[in-house]
Amino acid sequence: MAAEKFPLKGYTLPLTPEGHSSLVDPPPWYYGGEVMQLIFRTDAARAKELIPPPLESGPDPGQGIVWFTEWVSVSELNLDLAFINPERAVYRECLVMIQCSFQGETGYIVPYVWVDNDFTLMRGFVQGFPKKLARIYLTRLSELNPKVGGKRAGAKMKGICEAHGERIVEGSLVLTQQVEPSDLPPVKFYLMRHFPNIEDATTPTVHEIVSSIVSDVKVTDIWKCEATLKFSESAVEEVAALKPVEMLGGFFHNMGFTIKGGKVLHNYCSAGIAR
Amino acid sequence: MAAEKFPLKGYTLPLTPEGHSSLVDPPPWYYGGEVMQLIFRTDAARAKELIPPPLESGPDPGQGIVWFTEWVSVSELNLDLAFINPERAVYRECLVMIQCSFQGETGYIVPYVWVDNDFTLMRGFVQGFPKKLARIYLTRLSELNPKVGGKRAGAKMKGICEAHGERIVEGSLVLTQQVEPSDLPPVKFYLMRHFPNIEDATTPTVHEIVSSIVSDVKVTDIWKCEATLKFSESAVEEVAALKPVEMLGGFFHNMGFTIKGGKVLHNYCSAGIAR
Amino acid sequence: MAAEKFPLKGYTLPLTPEGHSSLVDPPPWYYGGEVMQLIFRTDAARAKELIPPPLESGPDPGQGIVWFTEWVSVSELNLDLAFINPERAVYRECLVMIQCSFQGETGYIVPYVWVDNDFTLMRGFVQGFPKKLARIYLTRLSELNPKVGGKRAGAKMKGICEAHGERIVEGSLVLTQQVEPSDLPPVKFYLMRHFPNIEDATTPTVHEIVSSIVSDVKVTDIWKCEATLKFSESAVEEVAALKPVEMLGGFFHNMGFTIKGGKVLHNYCSAGIAR
Amino acid sequence: MAAEKFPLKGYTLPLTPEGHSSLVDPPPWYYGGEVMQLIFRTDAARAKELIPPPLESGPDPGQGIVWFTEWVSVSELNLDLAFINPERAVYRECLVMIQCSFQGETGYIVPYVWVDNDFTLMRGFVQGFPKKLARIYLTRLSELNPKVGGKRAGAKMKGICEAHGERIVEGSLVLTQQVEPSDLPPVKFYLMRHFPNIEDATTPTVHEIVSSIVSDVKVTDIWKCEATLKFSESAVEEVAALKPVEMLGGFFHNMGFTIKGGKVLHNYCSAGIAR
Repeated sequence: MAAEKFPLKGYTLPLTPEGHSSLVDPPPWYYGGEVMQLIFRTDAARAKELIPPPLESGPDPGQGIVWFTEWVSVSELNLDLAFINPERAVYRECLVMIQCSFQGETGYIVPYVWVDNDFTLMRGFVQGFPKKLARIYLTRLSELNPKVGGKRAGAKMKGICEAHGERIVEGSLVLTQQVEPSDLPPVKFYLMRHFPNIEDATTPTVHEIVSSIVSDVKVTDIWKCEATLKFSESAVEEVAALKPVEMLGGFFHNMGFTIKGGKVLHNYCSAGIAR
Repeated sequence: MAAEKFPLKGYTLPLTPEGHSSLVDPPPWYYGGEVMQLIFRTDAARAKELIPPPLESGPDPGQGIVWFTEWVSVSELNLDLAFINPERAVYRECLVMIQCSFQGETGYIVPYVWVDNDFTLMRGFVQGFPKKLARIYLTRLSELNPKVGGKRAGAKMKGICEAHGERIVEGSLVLTQQVEPSDLPPVKFYLMRHFPNIEDATTPTVHEIVSSIVSDVKVTDIWKCEATLKFSESAVEEVAALKPVEMLGGFFHNMGFTIKGGKVLHNYCSAGIAR
Repeated sequence: MAAEKFPLKGYTLPLTPEGHSSLVDPPPWYYGGEVMQLIFRTDAARAKELIPPPLESGPDPGQGIVWFTEWVSVSELNLDLAFINPERAVYRECLVMIQCSFQGETGYIVPYVWVDNDFTLMRGFVQGFPKKLARIYLTRLSELNPKVGGKRAGAKMKGICEAHGERIVEGSLVLTQQVEPSDLPPVKFYLMRHFPNIEDATTPTVHEIVSSIVSDVKVTDIWKCEATLKFSESAVEEVAALKPVEMLGGFFHNMGFTIKGGKVLHNYCSAGIAR
Repeated sequence: MAAEKFPLKGYTLPLTPEGHSSLVDPPPWYYGGEVMQLIFRTDAARAKELIPPPLESGPDPGQGIVWFTEWVSVSELNLDLAFINPERAVYRECLVMIQCSFQGETGYIVPYVWVDNDFTLMRGFVQGFPKKLARIYLTRLSELNPKVGGKRAGAKMKGICEAHGERIVEGSLVLTQQVEPSDLPPVKFYLMRHFPNIEDATTPTVHEIVSSIVSDVKVTDIWKCEATLKFSESAVEEVAALKPVEMLGGFFHNMGFTIKGGKVLHNYCSAGIAR
């Protein structure tokens, strides 16, 4: 049998004869969207609990960012996905990140993130984003709506993330002035890939820290904002442990980029770290 | 009791002590959105079946238009609705209209329309739009997504309307060139308000033809498009009776307007027309 | 034109050539389901605010009931609806009722009610139930699930009603013992039908108090329960004004019945009551 | 660092300080539900394409089964999940299986399966079920609904599976007579676990054939049925390649069981099979 080629195709399950039914296509993945950024500081000790070694606290311990976004995303294998099936290519996200560092380089770990379709949930899981499903509601500004209006100083936006009947995260922005790309906080993701062992629930089959390989980042039309942020108590989620938060500001801007995969920085399984 | 004031408030049910829980606020209502227009011609006899007297066929019998839109909409009573609760203010619509005329003035009757939240469903019902719920998926163009791109000649968009597990309407556009507002077909709505009698199912309590009072119409960034349109067979819906359709073209553009209510043109209940 | 028959058919919009696309079929309507009943008492003054004249407070002012139910419902015109399209026929409901009386006969007004599909939303609106859309989650007991189990003393159930990203109502039951149908509180509905005037938002076209014509009521397998109930603050809803509530008990039982329409008890439009 | 204990807890992402936010709890997992079974035969060559070596065709090549089910499921760590949050514990599934064998023992591979919440999607992914999200609609029989009625000869049920605006699978049953548990086809699952490598999309990190460890299986109230089944063309899914199907019968019954994990039968990564 050693000579036999594995007959099914796909980057993730389902693997199929034609290989175009996989929940996720292989990278490169292409992204574009408008991003609400809400920058906060929580208790440094609480933030530290979310940063597993070998990652360490960053230079501003307790700092974090929430993104509310509607992404348009396609893959190299299916560049027309936003046309063929917009249900797949257009999705919303509420992402919570906490500043950390690895070997002296500052970045962000993502302890919590919610999205609203299955393809991005699984694509996140493969990369190390701990995605769950939610319903995410975002204010859309409207230049031609006589009473809403478009992007301008004073425009108000809200993001709401609701899962299993609970409002988990709520944030708002008031646009104040246009600023330069250099005013945005740089974001580098340190992610944790993890896949359980089906024979032994106590020891994962895959457990590694990964950095995303992100390129072609563009940001345009950047507005500095006043921001508010609220994490709510939940019977399921632990994000409310980050309360109370002090707000450090916010931004609203367009963004596009490419993700070509990731690089494994640390493998817990082979490193012999006690789990 | 004649002197007693009715104590509950609201434009529609629920009527409540504070009056801010009504499913719909009173007009004026303000709208803004990007509109996909798909212009078609069906068999004139089939179109005529959807035009009740005293409305008559229009000058181009069998002509019709499908709109796919994501609206941002607020009311005079709640101008901040898109901020306070975007789930209420942002919704999608797939609207099918058929050309008709009333006393020599050309307009459109709306035999079928689907939306994706309850407030617009009921606001439509009150105006005479026969709204049902659906899931509506729309391509979003993305200037900064490296492989999707923004509005330009060649950009492709799709709208999909699915209800009760059936794909009811699907349409697509390919943008070709920017054109002037005067290139758009003028649209005036003739709508049918209808509310059953609870004591006698054969005779409605309200049954009237209404024209919408629309003002402040603005359109910008208008693209002429090639269009396709597909109505699908359904165990529930009758829109597939309009098949086959010949395409007359399409447009994609921004639009904003105000609706201040409607004017009753014909009251079936008082007119003594046999029903 | 007086001799012309109105060519479109249907009980509600959309009226169509074939008449089988109406959002709602005419009565009779047939119902069956398992009902969680949560009986409470709120401040009598708060309850009274929800009871419009000529309805009056009932013999136990401030008493109310919440029902959480999954209904299976079909109409005389479409007896096979639960087979042809279960998405239409199976829906969930969270209904809040307040005791009242009319000409000395005790019943319940329904100030708030949420459901999860469009056909029941509109069927409710026609009857005078002020329905809005929500997501409603109900514990399902399971005889064969090794750790959940079926109906028995000690079994625990929960109902959750979430709308526009807010958890509006939450209630729970613990089954204690089987009891007789005569132990259930009798429920007669006094409902308010209301349809706005499109020319004048201040004066409705239809505004009347109606009693439902309910027959063939059957209840089986009735369990007395301990109950809890929680109304939550909301940016949209007013039901939290009924807080705090004292619990008077609960029930869980099967129920079936037929609704053949309603009888108008009071017409506000013709009665000349100041509104 | 070798002595440091990994500080975050959970069976799957997200790993958290408290460990109760994981999308999936560790096994044992407990299940109960009513199962619609639709037994079919497709072209044996088409079925064979879905069976990867070392699995082989079963004794009845081309035979397959579709299950439509609403499950109630809890885990050992959270036995009260169906009470605490029914949104998590109650979900629907449409599962397509194809007969195969491993070392002479007959079982089923699951090439396609759809569910309607995220927790079961991920729990399936960990076990080797290639789950995607869908909306799944199931007829519910209703003893007390005057026109629907309960389980009996002649009762009709339907299951519908819709994803990304397409109706993917539709099946129906007509109950004919009660039969014994021994009349049901025995089902043993051979599943494929698969997790991509983030550094190299062509070689998965995990790729293995697993058999589920299922115990405590109980079935009650088993009805033999006439069955129909329809797979539909899709722009995304490949299940329609199984058309046309010949129906071999159907069943409707209660079922409960426990899953304690799985046993790896074959590891593609270590076996050196060309992929």
